Amino acid sequence: MAPRYAPSLRSRMPPLAIVLQVSFIVLFAFFVETGDPEEGDEKFINSYANFQDVHVMVFLGFGFLASFLVRYGFSSVGFSMLVAAMAVQWATLLNGFLLTSSPSWKIRIKMKSLVDAEICASSALLAMGAVHGKTNPVQLLLMSLMEVTGFVINQWLIHSLFKTMSSIMSLHVFGTLFGVMTSWVLYRTENMPKHEKEKFDSKSGLFAMFGTLFLWMFWPSFNSALVKYKIIAYGTYLSLAVSTVTAMAVSALSSPTGKMNLVHIQGSILAGGVATGIAVTAVPWMDMTIGFCAALLATLGFRYLKGHMLHAFEIHDTRGVLNVHAIPGILGYLAYLLIRLVRLEDTTVAVRFAVNHICILLITVSMSLVLGMFTGTSLIAVQ
Amino acid sequence: MAPRYAPSLRSRMPPLAIVLQVSFIVLFAFFVETGDPEEGDEKFINSYANFQDVHVMVFLGFGFLASFLVRYGFSSVGFSMLVAAMAVQWATLLNGFLLTSSPSWKIRIKMKSLVDAEICASSALLAMGAVHGKTNPVQLLLMSLMEVTGFVINQWLIHSLFKTMSSIMSLHVFGTLFGVMTSWVLYRTENMPKHEKEKFDSKSGLFAMFGTLFLWMFWPSFNSALVKYKIIAYGTYLSLAVSTVTAMAVSALSSPTGKMNLVHIQGSILAGGVATGIAVTAVPWMDMTIGFCAALLATLGFRYLKGHMLHAFEIHDTRGVLNVHAIPGILGYLAYLLIRLVRLEDTTVAVRFAVNHICILLITVSMSLVLGMFTGTSLIAVQ
Amino acid sequence: MAPRYAPSLRSRMPPLAIVLQVSFIVLFAFFVETGDPEEGDEKFINSYANFQDVHVMVFLGFGFLASFLVRYGFSSVGFSMLVAAMAVQWATLLNGFLLTSSPSWKIRIKMKSLVDAEICASSALLAMGAVHGKTNPVQLLLMSLMEVTGFVINQWLIHSLFKTMSSIMSLHVFGTLFGVMTSWVLYRTENMPKHEKEKFDSKSGLFAMFGTLFLWMFWPSFNSALVKYKIIAYGTYLSLAVSTVTAMAVSALSSPTGKMNLVHIQGSILAGGVATGIAVTAVPWMDMTIGFCAALLATLGFRYLKGHMLHAFEIHDTRGVLNVHAIPGILGYLAYLLIRLVRLEDTTVAVRFAVNHICILLITVSMSLVLGMFTGTSLIAVQ
Repeated sequence: MAPRYAPSLRSRMPPLAIVLQVSFIVLFAFFVETGDPEEGDEKFINSYANFQDVHVMVFLGFGFLASFLVRYGFSSVGFSMLVAAMAVQWATLLNGFLLTSSPSWKIRIKMKSLVDAEICASSALLAMGAVHGKTNPVQLLLMSLMEVTGFVINQWLIHSLFKTMSSIMSLHVFGTLFGVMTSWVLYRTENMPKHEKEKFDSKSGLFAMFGTLFLWMFWPSFNSALVKYKIIAYGTYLSLAVSTVTAMAVSALSSPTGKMNLVHIQGSILAGGVATGIAVTAVPWMDMTIGFCAALLATLGFRYLKGHMLHAFEIHDTRGVLNVHAIPGILGYLAYLLIRLVRLEDTTVAVRFAVNHICILLITVSMSLVLGMFTGTSLIAVQ
Repeated sequence: MAPRYAPSLRSRMPPLAIVLQVSFIVLFAFFVETGDPEEGDEKFINSYANFQDVHVMVFLGFGFLASFLVRYGFSSVGFSMLVAAMAVQWATLLNGFLLTSSPSWKIRIKMKSLVDAEICASSALLAMGAVHGKTNPVQLLLMSLMEVTGFVINQWLIHSLFKTMSSIMSLHVFGTLFGVMTSWVLYRTENMPKHEKEKFDSKSGLFAMFGTLFLWMFWPSFNSALVKYKIIAYGTYLSLAVSTVTAMAVSALSSPTGKMNLVHIQGSILAGGVATGIAVTAVPWMDMTIGFCAALLATLGFRYLKGHMLHAFEIHDTRGVLNVHAIPGILGYLAYLLIRLVRLEDTTVAVRFAVNHICILLITVSMSLVLGMFTGTSLIAVQ
Repeated sequence: MAPRYAPSLRSRMPPLAIVLQVSFIVLFAFFVETGDPEEGDEKFINSYANFQDVHVMVFLGFGFLASFLVRYGFSSVGFSMLVAAMAVQWATLLNGFLLTSSPSWKIRIKMKSLVDAEICASSALLAMGAVHGKTNPVQLLLMSLMEVTGFVINQWLIHSLFKTMSSIMSLHVFGTLFGVMTSWVLYRTENMPKHEKEKFDSKSGLFAMFGTLFLWMFWPSFNSALVKYKIIAYGTYLSLAVSTVTAMAVSALSSPTGKMNLVHIQGSILAGGVATGIAVTAVPWMDMTIGFCAALLATLGFRYLKGHMLHAFEIHDTRGVLNVHAIPGILGYLAYLLIRLVRLEDTTVAVRFAVNHICILLITVSMSLVLGMFTGTSLIAVQ
């Protein structure tokens, strides 16, 4: 689709994809089976509805989110699908081997396996958001598989050390920083005019708005997919409403001409959902305040931080994932920590709780930075 | 986005939005709490699916419905989101204070609260459909909050006087007439060429078709969201199918060149859903007949009434909400009345039933006309 | 919309549609009633969610799938809706008369009636995919009603002879071959430049991609809508992921310039869902292998078979439904047969099973070819 790849590169992507695909089928033949056909119909339908919402967000939401770039309309959607379709298969295998408690080598597919696999795929799509327009299809494919591998290993490490899971936080923080690091390494080694590719027009903008809207509308499902207490959906809903108002107001306020910026808004209205999903307060006004702060930081990040990152650190973040996912993600995690600490009465328990959770954040950040740099360096080989 | 507002106005919208938003957060902190986290998971998921459909209709459906206007593509979607995000918060508070039976001042958020809030927001979006292109963002924001206030007060009044609720009828009739009155007052005081803004092209038309399709597909959920007997969804489904066929045929038939009109169709195929949702007959052929009549009236309204209203009464109704919501709404209400009256055997009961229900309609119409005029007059101040 | 129809023709479509619509309402008045209003709420909501997914696929998915054709953007969506809205009403009546076991003449509408009706409508939309751009609205309307009639009669015949249903297989194979035959007859009698109408641009392509994505995302619901064991959704999900990767790789591999073809991909990524829905293996790796083969055949079919069919047999298949539905459908049916035969131990039973199922396929193919040719010939009269 994008016309600049050498023919030699074009010829490399299809065989790679087919070889990977056939290997996945062989691995599935040995290790994966479906559950009992007699499984309760009722229960299935409930978890299916939840899975469906996540499915729509990953394939439609993240796919169309980047279609605002004029030159990347179809290729954005197409490659997102390719990457996600590969990633869910790979993630099903990795999750099954590393994170399932059962001792046997047989992986049994349940609705939860699919939701977990889609969470991994969405972290790969986040990482892809940072490198959009700087990579060829072969690089995208390899990068996404390496990101999924890193993501699952990070989860496994945290689970082994702290007996806890933190997939929603990891999803946003790991995926973003991994992508930004890869982008940084790739940026330094290329020398092309990057800005031409960030152009957008109002029609592509409407397509991207569709993707954004589906993410926005289904985010309560996303946040409640992995937790037991479903009422977190209320807080996410309110937080998203607040961050919509805040993002629009701040975008207009911080512009010299008083106009809202389409791209800022599309990112920043989601910031509340990111932060609330990690903070899980279950108190409406707290969720709303977190949504307010997250959208404020995200919009200001788009206005001031994005350009600064490019000029000072040579980090080019095409879709601005740093503002939409990493900053609200860390904000949400700190809010989570603070709220729990205030509620704990025993100082010893509180200190251990704080140290554990700061370690989890530091491990996730370090893993993502190191693996992102390593991946970026490896990808130069297939340029 | 729209380039004609004075800079002074631009500087007014963001502070207003932020001040309102912070006030809402403070009010939520004092008065709103979430339900019990241990609430039945099963029940939650069922009502969540219903809420989700309404949510998609309000934010995606009504947002993209007006995107057929070339100059209002993104701004239509953007402002719809801003207005709806504000309206749901305000409606949650108002509904909680006025319409909940519990004596305490604490509002407990449930799925039903969110559905009720979205119903209020959609009535505000209907009103907005009549004034599209004649208002600035500050006016839209204030108008939507006044519409929600009026809508909830009207509901509260009817509930106090007649011990009954009629939110679906009110939604269509109150919202539309409120918007049309506001539009009328604003139209008389401005003097700009209105018609230029109603241009549409076929590409924007496809976006609007998306919005329409989501409304059309999910309308059965909308109508069954507030009633106990879910089988009303069957009638709505059949009625929508009939009104689709009727709207297309009548649009082609009433055109001199025999062509269907994109804008007429997008409005009129929904007319059956509006009327059936109010008539609630639960008899397939009756719902289909109502759908046929509603689509007929709506399409003829677009062809003949809309221009007449503009020239004779100086009422400019950008999206034609009068044809899509008010006329089918009143038709559905009369059908509802008639069907119940025929089934009642006792004359005394029948007369009281008829008088009560005609009073409800008259109160709703009067309230919407008066409050709409009042709102329009107030909005001239912030022009 | 399309400007080439004679005025005389324009004047014919609306009256035909209105007469048909009024007749349907009269038939519904005599024969159709809704179920018990007290029907279990819980059960309704579960089947409603399933119906909803099929509903979205039929109206949004199939409607927007053909919008990639520049000249057929809105008319494709509009006529798809018209045809589908007619077809569901007609199919509800026919299914009720022929396929319901109850002896009375009263048809009772349930969620299953609507799902069955939508399956019929989607087979009519498939048939329409083959003739897109070669027919006028009157022809489309008549063709869709004849297709639905043929489809239901074929189902009834198979049910009477073999006491078994095979709606998913029939849907893909019958609909496609019916449409292709109609297209063949119509093609031979017209002489206009067909190729101009297959142009597409990347913006229309994005709209079509939306339709495709909704089909792709909801296909697991579609396949599990009619079967008792819902776990078939897992296999469909995996098969679709595999066929996405395969279709993209094979499309790029078989192109001289190494580019993926938007139209090929939009068709072929669905092939896995078609084949798996018929094969129903419930073994992950088998479903994945079937998805791989189906996407391979479909993509190669688009590259080589489509042009060959046009030049050698004068069969013009606008949307390529032969590659997307018929070939993967037959592949899936053969896989179904093979897997069951291997599992059967008794030779007599196995032989009878094989003969029965091959007869079902042959009856479906013959019926569709004969009825398609007959329909095409009849439609020449209303040209």
